[in-house]
Amino acid sequence: MQLGLSVSDSDVSSFTPLVVLELADDTKAEAITWLLNRIRDKQQNGGAELLVNQLLFPAQDDQKPNPNVFVVGSTLQRLLNGAEDVGLFKEFQDGTMRGFTYANRESFKDFNEGFLSDAECQYIIKHELDTLRAKNEEHVPGYPKLKLYPGKSVVRRLQSKGVLIQYFPLHNKEDLKRLSFSWYKKFKLSLQPLDDIRHYFGEGLALYFGFLEYFTFALVPMALIGIPYYLFDWEDYDKYVLFAVFNLVWSTVFLEVWKRCSATLAYGWGTLSRKKAFEEPRAGFHGALGFNPVTGREEPVYPSSKRQLRIYLVSVPFVLLCLYLSFYVMMVYFDMEFWAINIYNENPDIATSILLFVPSIIYAVVIEIMNLLYRFAAEFLTDWENHRLESSFQNHLVLKVLVFNFVNCFASLFYIAFVMQDMVLLRQSLATLLITSQILNQVMEAFLPYWLQRRRNKKVHKRMRRLMGDKELPLLGQVQLETEMNTYLGTFDDYLEQFLLFGYVSLFSCVYPLAAVLVVLNNITEVYSDAFKMCHVFKRPFSEPAMNIGVWQLAFETMSIIAVVTNCALIGLSPQVKAYFPESDTQLILIVVAIEHVLLAFKFILAFVIPDVPKHIQVNLAKLEFDSLEALKKRVSTHFLKKEP
Amino acid sequence: MQLGLSVSDSDVSSFTPLVVLELADDTKAEAITWLLNRIRDKQQNGGAELLVNQLLFPAQDDQKPNPNVFVVGSTLQRLLNGAEDVGLFKEFQDGTMRGFTYANRESFKDFNEGFLSDAECQYIIKHELDTLRAKNEEHVPGYPKLKLYPGKSVVRRLQSKGVLIQYFPLHNKEDLKRLSFSWYKKFKLSLQPLDDIRHYFGEGLALYFGFLEYFTFALVPMALIGIPYYLFDWEDYDKYVLFAVFNLVWSTVFLEVWKRCSATLAYGWGTLSRKKAFEEPRAGFHGALGFNPVTGREEPVYPSSKRQLRIYLVSVPFVLLCLYLSFYVMMVYFDMEFWAINIYNENPDIATSILLFVPSIIYAVVIEIMNLLYRFAAEFLTDWENHRLESSFQNHLVLKVLVFNFVNCFASLFYIAFVMQDMVLLRQSLATLLITSQILNQVMEAFLPYWLQRRRNKKVHKRMRRLMGDKELPLLGQVQLETEMNTYLGTFDDYLEQFLLFGYVSLFSCVYPLAAVLVVLNNITEVYSDAFKMCHVFKRPFSEPAMNIGVWQLAFETMSIIAVVTNCALIGLSPQVKAYFPESDTQLILIVVAIEHVLLAFKFILAFVIPDVPKHIQVNLAKLEFDSLEALKKRVSTHFLKKEP
Repeated sequence: MQLGLSVSDSDVSSFTPLVVLELADDTKAEAITWLLNRIRDKQQNGGAELLVNQLLFPAQDDQKPNPNVFVVGSTLQRLLNGAEDVGLFKEFQDGTMRGFTYANRESFKDFNEGFLSDAECQYIIKHELDTLRAKNEEHVPGYPKLKLYPGKSVVRRLQSKGVLIQYFPLHNKEDLKRLSFSWYKKFKLSLQPLDDIRHYFGEGLALYFGFLEYFTFALVPMALIGIPYYLFDWEDYDKYVLFAVFNLVWSTVFLEVWKRCSATLAYGWGTLSRKKAFEEPRAGFHGALGFNPVTGREEPVYPSSKRQLRIYLVSVPFVLLCLYLSFYVMMVYFDMEFWAINIYNENPDIATSILLFVPSIIYAVVIEIMNLLYRFAAEFLTDWENHRLESSFQNHLVLKVLVFNFVNCFASLFYIAFVMQDMVLLRQSLATLLITSQILNQVMEAFLPYWLQRRRNKKVHKRMRRLMGDKELPLLGQVQLETEMNTYLGTFDDYLEQFLLFGYVSLFSCVYPLAAVLVVLNNITEVYSDAFKMCHVFKRPFSEPAMNIGVWQLAFETMSIIAVVTNCALIGLSPQVKAYFPESDTQLILIVVAIEHVLLAFKFILAFVIPDVPKHIQVNLAKLEFDSLEALKKRVSTHFLKKEP
Repeated sequence: MQLGLSVSDSDVSSFTPLVVLELADDTKAEAITWLLNRIRDKQQNGGAELLVNQLLFPAQDDQKPNPNVFVVGSTLQRLLNGAEDVGLFKEFQDGTMRGFTYANRESFKDFNEGFLSDAECQYIIKHELDTLRAKNEEHVPGYPKLKLYPGKSVVRRLQSKGVLIQYFPLHNKEDLKRLSFSWYKKFKLSLQPLDDIRHYFGEGLALYFGFLEYFTFALVPMALIGIPYYLFDWEDYDKYVLFAVFNLVWSTVFLEVWKRCSATLAYGWGTLSRKKAFEEPRAGFHGALGFNPVTGREEPVYPSSKRQLRIYLVSVPFVLLCLYLSFYVMMVYFDMEFWAINIYNENPDIATSILLFVPSIIYAVVIEIMNLLYRFAAEFLTDWENHRLESSFQNHLVLKVLVFNFVNCFASLFYIAFVMQDMVLLRQSLATLLITSQILNQVMEAFLPYWLQRRRNKKVHKRMRRLMGDKELPLLGQVQLETEMNTYLGTFDDYLEQFLLFGYVSLFSCVYPLAAVLVVLNNITEVYSDAFKMCHVFKRPFSEPAMNIGVWQLAFETMSIIAVVTNCALIGLSPQVKAYFPESDTQLILIVVAIEHVLLAFKFILAFVIPDVPKHIQVNLAKLEFDSLEALKKRVSTHFLKKEP
């Protein structure tokens, strides 16, 4: 089943197909003709100047195939121009990363052999499609109600109106085989092939896997310290002071060092100094016709006061209601817990000691279900808030989800630790929550979609074989297979999971030192299952340039600040520390608070003192800036020479 | 005594003199000739293309005048080119601020009438002089030891070797008269003429006065609330809880709103989006010859490891020693205080009740003296650390000075408040420190220099009159007068003073509500005395483009965080609050700590939520960016058209 870049069905396409476009099967012919013309048209006429061909699937007995599936490709020349357009950074002859320009193309390293990766080509095609702008057309031909606004993206418009169902990049079987082998198929102790991942899936995803790897390695010392704690001081809860101190220092240093690692990665991938493109409105954004204050053009606008009203009058109350519900469920859990403990105390045997864990397990499952339901509600609400830009949408979504997930997952632990002050229950509850949620996550995230996908694959294979006999499955089969795959919704859920794991470790692991061990084990399997799901379960996602992990850095930092406070409070509660201040609690509390303030101050100073970008990359960036200033100066002085005489 | 821009001594200069250059009086003739030629040379030959003339002072009986004083001016054409060079932002036809380009000059608002202010012209000349770079000369002619490095600033080199004594901009008597009238001479209740100040002194100084004004206004509500507290609850120390809460909210909102004000001012002055120039090394920077890693050119370099050693082995211990000394002095003060209180208790009459204030007054004077001495030491040390860039020098100096000043001024107050818990003494000590330091500051800062300057002025006037009879004093007299004036060392000390006043108000004013009133009164006179000293006591400073108050914003924010902690602790100590928790201190402390954490979190969220730049300016900035992207696109597509056929 090879396909790759070689063109095996010459009747279908005479170019390397990179991106698939699927229109609704009842799309009017005139609209299709118009769209294809616009895509094929020359750039100076406002077209995208790409190659596009229809894919005709043979009719099948059980269902009529969608006739409106197209593959898009491009000439190399067009791709190189597009690379300059999107502001791609590539390695220059002298080893620094520079913005690619067509004029200087020969001065870039390895210009001739595979200069642009598949993912980059697909990203460029996506960008060119997205920025295909309406000209003078008032509406989409055949759809008088589907208005177009001059200068706005045609594809976004078609997408938001349901004419364009989806468009996605095709997998490259050869590369995928090679990548998956070096990534997760061979049994090895080496690091992940981050550069290859970036090559195939883009920087955003590669950064996620880089972070996952870094986080896992950072946890190893903690896990190593945790094991003897667990083995030898099993019932010695009050020995965790040292561990808490370690925790504090670790969580601060961890995040600061990651910033530097991420800057190094992003520099090597050319995304660190790349400028952000002017952001297009989201596909789902709608509003009354008005004037954009920035561009001065006529387009749909939505007053931000209305959005504020929706946020404060609907979203905020809804989130509060959900939080209340979460607290209510927590109280039910505690009732169950006491009931189980009472039964155990009345009749302590094996059956009842197992029963002790049942409430926690049920609670963990309920938490996961609530998180899942809330996630959908949050997405719906944030969509309804009608944010104009994707970045603003994402920020509001992340904030909503983080607040709820944090409370939902950790509220019971905080309650047990600081209100009930029951360290035995805390440890037991923490362990059950952690293990249950890990198991559920792995199932939900990888095995379930894999199983569904396998069933679907088999069906498609059987169908195709029936139609074409025993021939290898070429482009048609691959496109049909991938069209039906699930869409990968971005790194959001993956980061969220890591965020919650980070919370379990940094907030409470001093009470249950084995937490770090469990998270390390989870993350090792996570790497494999995530890698597998990216390669075989989901559609290939478009690569997304990323210079850092974005809002998640802030989220993790906030968590580490909360961790300082929590750990200090746990230290203050430990019998060991309390023993030093037998006569007065007041003094103990004052000292703990003082230490906490010093630690927080220290944390801020540390974050301030450690440069976010390593020295040698700073020098490289300064070099680039210096060169562009020098070039500017030259331009200015030739300008003078022309002016002067 | 008019002079202004009209040229009244045509034998001396045939252009408007803007900047004065003073070389050492024993400078070799060949060096002078070389320097003047380089300044006058055309830009394409690497010269500055400025106009420069010698000023010859008539010989005087008592002393020989320095023959090496020069005035520098420029043609309008050169200034306009220079404006593009330094990246000046000016108001465009459509009301937005845009980077000035010579090609589009006619599209800027008011291009014809007084387009460039005096201060801008002088700034451009300074920039052109500073970036006059060595070409192939190996050393300054006549000085074989004074090496030059290709591409490095000639003027900086001459300055650091003592050949160039100083260069400064000339006052413009007409403008100055107008400015000083509208600024401080007329009795008025209007605001300061910030735009005029910026026009005459540049953005850096105008922002300082803007901040001073804003701070003073922000204090007015606090002062108004403080007065009844002071009048009616004179002995009622425990009523300050409400005031402390007000304090907390105030200090947070104050700084957030200032950021927006400052962005508005900076946008209107065209400095908000202006790019920073590539920073030249400081004049005093020295080191062994090596290669600059950024430019690849040969120049003096100084290993940062050596600098780190100097910082950690000398500077840090020195600062710690000074802090120890400050604590020692504080302890002596407390001894004096107890001694005075004992005397008063033994024999309470008017004389001994006055004696009660003596230790505080002495201590306040000693604090001021220590601050002054430390300031010199810190400057010397930071200079010795040999920082390459002025910005790095400034950061290290500010950090050193702030830490010491903070401890020196506030340590005794913290000690009284939290160790001795004596609110009566705290109030008395605060009042004495505040009033004494204000009086001392005003004297040291304005009246003393003014008095010295007046004496000097009279001497110069007399001398000139003797030489020239009763003729008006033209250029020669003005230059001689201004050459001998003191140099204004920048806004550092002015901001430092405001920082300490902010500390007195935000940290402790709830104990002594009159503090805000005193600071308001002080700042009103401060505006007048600062305005006066800028106009008549010091040399005119070069204008400095500034987009915000820089490191001081951070300093004030840090202070406001400390204020939250301090105020919460003061609330916790108040008898009024303590009365609510008669049986247990523990509960009280826990509640206070919890409230403190909530307030701190609230503060951070507030800082995060309030946008630093007002909406309408964000839109303007986005417009600018959009336009430049559009222009780029046009450039790219013409590029295609050229390439394609």
